[in-house]
Amino acid sequence: MKRPQVTIDGNEATAYVAHKLSEVIAIYPITPSSPMGEFADEWSAAKETNIWGTVPLVVEMQSEGGAAGAVHGAMQTGALTTTFTASQGLLLMIPNMYKIAGELTPTVFHVSARSLAAQGLSIFGDHSDVMATRGAGFALLASSSVQEAHDLALIAHASTLDARIPFLHFFDGFRTSHEVNKIEQLTHEDLQAMIEDRFVYAHRQRSLSPDRPVMRGTAQNPDVYFQARETVNPYYQACPEVVQKYMDKFASLVGRQYHLFDYAGALDAERVIVIMGSGAETASETAAYLAERGEKVGVVNVHLYRPFSVKHFLEALPPTVKVIAVLDRSKEPGSAGEPLYQDVVTAINEGLAEGSAPYAQFANRPYARVIGGRYGLSSKEFTPAMAKGVFDEMLKAEPKNHFTIGIQDDVTHASLDYDPGFFIEMPETVRCVFWGLGADGTVGANKNSIKIIGEETDNYAQGYFVYDSKKSGSVTISHLRFGPKPIRAPYQIGRANFVACHQFSFLERFDVTKYAAPGAVFLLNSIYGPDQVWEHLPIETQVAILEKKLRFYVIDAYEVARKTGMGGRINTIMQTCFFAISGVLPREQAIASIKYAIEKTYGKRGEAVVRRNYEAVDQTLENLYQVEVPREANSQLSRRPPVPAEWP
Amino acid sequence: MKRPQVTIDGNEATAYVAHKLSEVIAIYPITPSSPMGEFADEWSAAKETNIWGTVPLVVEMQSEGGAAGAVHGAMQTGALTTTFTASQGLLLMIPNMYKIAGELTPTVFHVSARSLAAQGLSIFGDHSDVMATRGAGFALLASSSVQEAHDLALIAHASTLDARIPFLHFFDGFRTSHEVNKIEQLTHEDLQAMIEDRFVYAHRQRSLSPDRPVMRGTAQNPDVYFQARETVNPYYQACPEVVQKYMDKFASLVGRQYHLFDYAGALDAERVIVIMGSGAETASETAAYLAERGEKVGVVNVHLYRPFSVKHFLEALPPTVKVIAVLDRSKEPGSAGEPLYQDVVTAINEGLAEGSAPYAQFANRPYARVIGGRYGLSSKEFTPAMAKGVFDEMLKAEPKNHFTIGIQDDVTHASLDYDPGFFIEMPETVRCVFWGLGADGTVGANKNSIKIIGEETDNYAQGYFVYDSKKSGSVTISHLRFGPKPIRAPYQIGRANFVACHQFSFLERFDVTKYAAPGAVFLLNSIYGPDQVWEHLPIETQVAILEKKLRFYVIDAYEVARKTGMGGRINTIMQTCFFAISGVLPREQAIASIKYAIEKTYGKRGEAVVRRNYEAVDQTLENLYQVEVPREANSQLSRRPPVPAEWP
Repeated sequence: MKRPQVTIDGNEATAYVAHKLSEVIAIYPITPSSPMGEFADEWSAAKETNIWGTVPLVVEMQSEGGAAGAVHGAMQTGALTTTFTASQGLLLMIPNMYKIAGELTPTVFHVSARSLAAQGLSIFGDHSDVMATRGAGFALLASSSVQEAHDLALIAHASTLDARIPFLHFFDGFRTSHEVNKIEQLTHEDLQAMIEDRFVYAHRQRSLSPDRPVMRGTAQNPDVYFQARETVNPYYQACPEVVQKYMDKFASLVGRQYHLFDYAGALDAERVIVIMGSGAETASETAAYLAERGEKVGVVNVHLYRPFSVKHFLEALPPTVKVIAVLDRSKEPGSAGEPLYQDVVTAINEGLAEGSAPYAQFANRPYARVIGGRYGLSSKEFTPAMAKGVFDEMLKAEPKNHFTIGIQDDVTHASLDYDPGFFIEMPETVRCVFWGLGADGTVGANKNSIKIIGEETDNYAQGYFVYDSKKSGSVTISHLRFGPKPIRAPYQIGRANFVACHQFSFLERFDVTKYAAPGAVFLLNSIYGPDQVWEHLPIETQVAILEKKLRFYVIDAYEVARKTGMGGRINTIMQTCFFAISGVLPREQAIASIKYAIEKTYGKRGEAVVRRNYEAVDQTLENLYQVEVPREANSQLSRRPPVPAEWP
Repeated sequence: MKRPQVTIDGNEATAYVAHKLSEVIAIYPITPSSPMGEFADEWSAAKETNIWGTVPLVVEMQSEGGAAGAVHGAMQTGALTTTFTASQGLLLMIPNMYKIAGELTPTVFHVSARSLAAQGLSIFGDHSDVMATRGAGFALLASSSVQEAHDLALIAHASTLDARIPFLHFFDGFRTSHEVNKIEQLTHEDLQAMIEDRFVYAHRQRSLSPDRPVMRGTAQNPDVYFQARETVNPYYQACPEVVQKYMDKFASLVGRQYHLFDYAGALDAERVIVIMGSGAETASETAAYLAERGEKVGVVNVHLYRPFSVKHFLEALPPTVKVIAVLDRSKEPGSAGEPLYQDVVTAINEGLAEGSAPYAQFANRPYARVIGGRYGLSSKEFTPAMAKGVFDEMLKAEPKNHFTIGIQDDVTHASLDYDPGFFIEMPETVRCVFWGLGADGTVGANKNSIKIIGEETDNYAQGYFVYDSKKSGSVTISHLRFGPKPIRAPYQIGRANFVACHQFSFLERFDVTKYAAPGAVFLLNSIYGPDQVWEHLPIETQVAILEKKLRFYVIDAYEVARKTGMGGRINTIMQTCFFAISGVLPREQAIASIKYAIEKTYGKRGEAVVRRNYEAVDQTLENLYQVEVPREANSQLSRRPPVPAEWP
């Protein structure tokens, strides 16, 4: 069966599955999970049905505490129920989570994992929020990519009904949640095949009803509470096998095979990173790259974090492992170690004690060599260079423990050094970076470009958009990748083939060309024509163009917009330039596709708008010039320092 | 300096210190922490001042979420601030706790640790609530007894101001919180000596003020959040030494020496239990008892659980240790192990890796032998017999891991067997059990008796009151201990010297004499006189009296009460009987003390009430009879089964 290929982000990929498998959706939107609630609301408003043919009821509550209570209550009626949340919003659900899990009620919470407000708040991503709930008794299932968020959302919904344990399915907020990627979309038939009617029926039968009187929500005294608390053990013991069963069933249906712990890298690896979320994809790609070049390295990607199956974890490790580095995307100040690190230490220790992890290397020493580190807090970049830095540290006789990677810690000196010049991107991938002004249409046009390339060609496409948290009116940087192979690179582009700067004034504030690879195309929206522009560039930009031998193009997009009646809207014009010079698509095909996208996007605003856009496209090609670059940098202008010299 | 000796419970002992060291107390009462808030409120209403001479402002909010927010806000003004809470109430504080800790704001939350509502709610005690907050960055300081709750409350307040890290000071809800024990009360001078003015001043200086403009509560982006989150590291690294510093200072002032990890037992112990809270006292007493008899056992009592100092923990272990059993009073379903267990595994592993834990026994095997178990959930009893059961398990070649102790798990078979007949109580301790009806005055009279003995003699005294959660109108069982040595026995009495049953009807419903040791006194409130009572006893009671050779007394307390104008109030009468026959105090002294207590308790109700009580005391002695026990049990009556045979 040929399934639809769609280019969507992780929030949409997840909400799609959740909406199709729910009857009640209680929400209180919080960044970066809000789009999940908004999609669900929009779909229900449009009478989109779930797989049983009914329209899910979407209710917005007064807070996340209320949403969790509404979920708990709705489930008592036998409704299939879900919610979406993140960060401190998830924390407000904790009291209900203990009860939902204690009562063995199946549900899935979909979480775009986000930092917790501590020394400051942050809307960006890490696993601190999810980790804060790990005592509550929910199963925790982690996705590393947009496709996984789509697939594991289904596996979570299928597993919870069978296992009785509620699931928290999570992925990296503001990375996976907002990364647009080309994925294979699951069909109604896929969803129907994975959800077993008998478990839905059993869930209905457990609802509170005068026809089947039971007492629930009781108070228990010391005589029975402890015994009752232990009655859940068999469910938690069985849960990992249940999840693997649905992963296997999914594989037989769809073809993509997941495991509780997925291993990538050399089969005889001696150095292994254990990690979850989008960082696992980066680390796995890095391990594969290094292993191809003879390094004995590998990665265990943790999907099912709770219940933590020591048995499955040990089986996922290569028997040759000597050193393990566990990377946590969270921080618990004052702990003996971050959560995943402690679990791995415990698993290794128990495995050795029970003889189920008889690794020769471990057995020769009195302890298991496991080190732990933190990375990527609050969407701090985690790149292949950093993953390699961790692998390199593991070569040392006394590797650092409780390290950080990705920052420079000159206070407690916990950070590891790494070579930021290490790149592993596939040569066949086209990498493009666009500097735009928030709300100037750059991001929208780029999303259009991804859809054009991803859905109208066989190419894969990925888009990631770096916003300032002020969003509108500030800088947005779009990172777009295109290529013939699936794009597994959940990090910003380091060496772009194409860099576009949609605002001339950015040159004096930012190092715009830093993303450009040698020989890349550099497109600048400039009021200065190809003959005058050079002398108006800051010296740093001139030097970069010369040193990297950039192919330099200019267009006066505001002038073209003015002439074609577009006012100040330059997004279509800059998008046309991109297709004209990047060579991602044949020019004719690209122009046709842009015009088709214009029709789709602006058609409802009337024919005049569409025609003006068409004309802008045509005019663009006549006003796009390659600059003949002088041999010397000679500008009198300099980029402004981030902090003016006169400031204290 | 001679300090006052007071007999109070853990809530009062803690609230006393907190009130003296606070300016703002934001509360939302929740069982079993409510009395702390009520005491603070009462003292402030009575214009009791803190050590700086001002009356703390006690504010009740709309929920624990509001209380935590009020605490956070009050601290921004530079006020010394505290709160009291437990269970799901503490969970509602988690979002604020991350912020309070992230901003390095000194405060102490005093928590009477309570079960979380899961499969059912429970008002009783375990550490699940505290453990649910362990990621938030608070220091977690555990007290094992009423005296410790008093002392460590002070050490927490002193340490937080110095260390900048907020503290959560906790003790076992419905055990330590409600156990009445004779303790040495700290004086104003003690408190003043421990709190350093310069840190109070520094706290004031960090307040928000237009005179010192700073920005706080900001949003941080990926460029700086991670680095900023790591800036707290030096504070957490320093915190354990800060706490030990104040523990040492406290010892030099007061004489009681605490350590972050306190060790008890054989110096060459091979089997060591690691545990915290009141269970640590039971385990420590058991280890001391067994060590005196040659067993190589010991206990590490964890006081400072967060920041967890691996170094101090390893130093506390005897170098001879071979097996460690970690006991957690909490459960996290689906985890790789309970929290304290995982910390100990991590600490041992790291200690061996770094060479700081070079134990010969551990070094000879490829792994550290650490097992973990759960005990005492929701105030399930944890007795010396259970502690011995754990020590016994550690003798096995393959001891069970992830066990439970104190229940019988016939589903997943995780529970350990133990010999419930093992007792370690000191022979010089008098142990008394009283069966009363909720609100019949038994508990109040017993609390009076403890005060009489604890405060008017050199004896130590302890009282613990087992309520049904329905409290009024149900059974209350009072467990009282008296003796010349401090009473460190935070568990119910197994073999009482004295058992009193204040309601005849209990005999047909409960095994009243099960607490009685052989040769004990059994006092029964009976409408049947010494000659008739035997034939009205259930056969089981007759058998018990004969087999245990109980000395059996009766009094018709309701008749005495009626005759002396006391109506239905029998508490003073039964209390008099207790003093008359238990021999705890010389009879004359006891009678005088009871009359003094009557004066104190009922004086405000007028002379007539006092005189009637006096007369009841005098009449009691004339109506108390020892029963000449027949040689044979011959009753036709039987105790009723807990569930009638005809029920389904």
